[in-house]
Amino acid sequence: MVLGDPAGERDLTAAVAAGTHVASGAAALIELATRSDVDLVVIGAGGIVTLGPIIAALEARKVVATANKETLVAGGHLVMPLARARAAEVAAESPAHPLATPLGWLRPIDSEHSAIWQCLVGEDLAHVDRLIITGSGGPFLDLPASEFAGITPESALRHPTWSMGAKITIDSATLANKGLEVIEARWLYDVAYEQIDVVIHPQSVVHSAVQFVDGSLKAQMGIPDMRLPIQYALTYPDRRPSRAAPADLVATARLDFRPPDLDRFPALRIAREAGQMGPWATTALIAADDVAVARFLGGTLDFIGIPRLLEDAVTRFGRNRGPDPDVDELVNLDMEVRRVFAGAATGAPA
Amino acid sequence: MVLGDPAGERDLTAAVAAGTHVASGAAALIELATRSDVDLVVIGAGGIVTLGPIIAALEARKVVATANKETLVAGGHLVMPLARARAAEVAAESPAHPLATPLGWLRPIDSEHSAIWQCLVGEDLAHVDRLIITGSGGPFLDLPASEFAGITPESALRHPTWSMGAKITIDSATLANKGLEVIEARWLYDVAYEQIDVVIHPQSVVHSAVQFVDGSLKAQMGIPDMRLPIQYALTYPDRRPSRAAPADLVATARLDFRPPDLDRFPALRIAREAGQMGPWATTALIAADDVAVARFLGGTLDFIGIPRLLEDAVTRFGRNRGPDPDVDELVNLDMEVRRVFAGAATGAPA
Repeated sequence: MVLGDPAGERDLTAAVAAGTHVASGAAALIELATRSDVDLVVIGAGGIVTLGPIIAALEARKVVATANKETLVAGGHLVMPLARARAAEVAAESPAHPLATPLGWLRPIDSEHSAIWQCLVGEDLAHVDRLIITGSGGPFLDLPASEFAGITPESALRHPTWSMGAKITIDSATLANKGLEVIEARWLYDVAYEQIDVVIHPQSVVHSAVQFVDGSLKAQMGIPDMRLPIQYALTYPDRRPSRAAPADLVATARLDFRPPDLDRFPALRIAREAGQMGPWATTALIAADDVAVARFLGGTLDFIGIPRLLEDAVTRFGRNRGPDPDVDELVNLDMEVRRVFAGAATGAPA
Repeated sequence: MVLGDPAGERDLTAAVAAGTHVASGAAALIELATRSDVDLVVIGAGGIVTLGPIIAALEARKVVATANKETLVAGGHLVMPLARARAAEVAAESPAHPLATPLGWLRPIDSEHSAIWQCLVGEDLAHVDRLIITGSGGPFLDLPASEFAGITPESALRHPTWSMGAKITIDSATLANKGLEVIEARWLYDVAYEQIDVVIHPQSVVHSAVQFVDGSLKAQMGIPDMRLPIQYALTYPDRRPSRAAPADLVATARLDFRPPDLDRFPALRIAREAGQMGPWATTALIAADDVAVARFLGGTLDFIGIPRLLEDAVTRFGRNRGPDPDVDELVNLDMEVRRVFAGAATGAPA
């Protein structure tokens, strides 16, 4: 077994059995992700820290399954060309091989992106007309706009359908998560932002869907259980029995769909605009969102301050500073945004 | 152009331009379906008369796209081995070829079976746990059992979501059509009857779905428009822009699902039982259903007499008379059932 501590802060050597190799620090993730005895790398960590290891893994011809949003939101322009290159190498030998597609190499674990991926299996990406990303709408789906300023961390952490970590749960409450998923979709499936819709679906049974050019729509459904998309990312193209309960249309009885309200949930609009600006803007967005959520949970930013901070960050730091950023430039921008917004008063940078 | 008149009753020669080859009679369909300049045969005709031409077409290595239910309900045991043999020949050369699957050779045009087929593209049949065939429930979905005896042909012909011919519209009202689709599914996808569910879905937006062994479910959706499944059967594995309006989850807003009521709609139960008995029983069923619907429309059988007649026919003629029937035996059984039930009083054979 190999253990890594990305922060490099703890000495793990003493805690493990003799003979265990301990790696730590940022370089440890790259060491882990590129070992010769590794076939598939699962990225469960958040943050931009995983971008380097994912690039290294793809360069070393390892399959990557990732639950990390920063990889694609900030670094889609760096990661996807590698996944496409790996796929093209396989396709040259064997066009129908499961690894002859970019998604075979960079496998999404997000339930929404796993759903779209599953709907695309056996289909030609050129036949995609639209992607439909569904979202539960979060705990404030029906809350009047006038009450948003009074939303507390406690109420925001009560997600109606998914049990997740604090950061992603707050992102679900602001709909920032749907915005980040739109940006991820743009990279994963190589479609234009205009081809990506977000639809609110309170039951979280339809995990997402694909509309094809002939008007046909395919949706993937399941109970909200992350074991399903994680397993699919590990077994693709195989499917194996799971401990997750199967989807049951009759038990579900009713599925509802409605458009998102961009007035009450401006983070979705801001994220889409950042996506259209480019990787500098999306990097600023995701760093700012991390800060904003931490400050909301810590009591120094109110709920409606979250999208304000995002818009501020995208406006101030999102302009293209030359060509698309490399990893070092992304990391520097990330740090700059965090530094500027970390201690600021509600909605206004320091 | 070649014209065929299956019944051979009309002299079409006089009606067509000089140089047009006119074929007629039962042999004409076989001639049409096996011509050297034919790649793909579309079967739009009803009745057991198409079974011979479909077998001939598959033997001649023609792709068959069929809207005909009798082919599979009565002759699934004859047709599917041919489709599988054609697929195996292609798979031996090129395992990922679109014609390396039985469904590439025998393409369903029914919206339900097209939906299941589309959900299975790129998936392994061995990973199928259940098939979910949806149905609108027909115009009497919520009618109390006590009022079924008074159902008129006029009210039964008013289908809530699909505009179809009289026979299939009445079959939708009795749920016999769902029963026939269960039998077709058993053959097309090579699954056990226990793996096939029927779910009532009044909006007819989810055309059917597949549940996989990992608990994941894929559904195909669209507006109720037969141009979609017809086009897919012609263009598979390609998809092309269509004149059909695309599916729209937000415009649909709500989808409902519930189990079928087998007490008010016994035809579904009877069809499933016939399927489990075997091809003699399903042939008797489909011949009897043709007679029953014609008699209901003609006023000599009431609505609740339809399933009674079906059950009668399956009971009297459905027992296996030796090995599975060949085409001649099916045609003879079909004629026998029609003769016995054609002029009979309500619910009782002559």
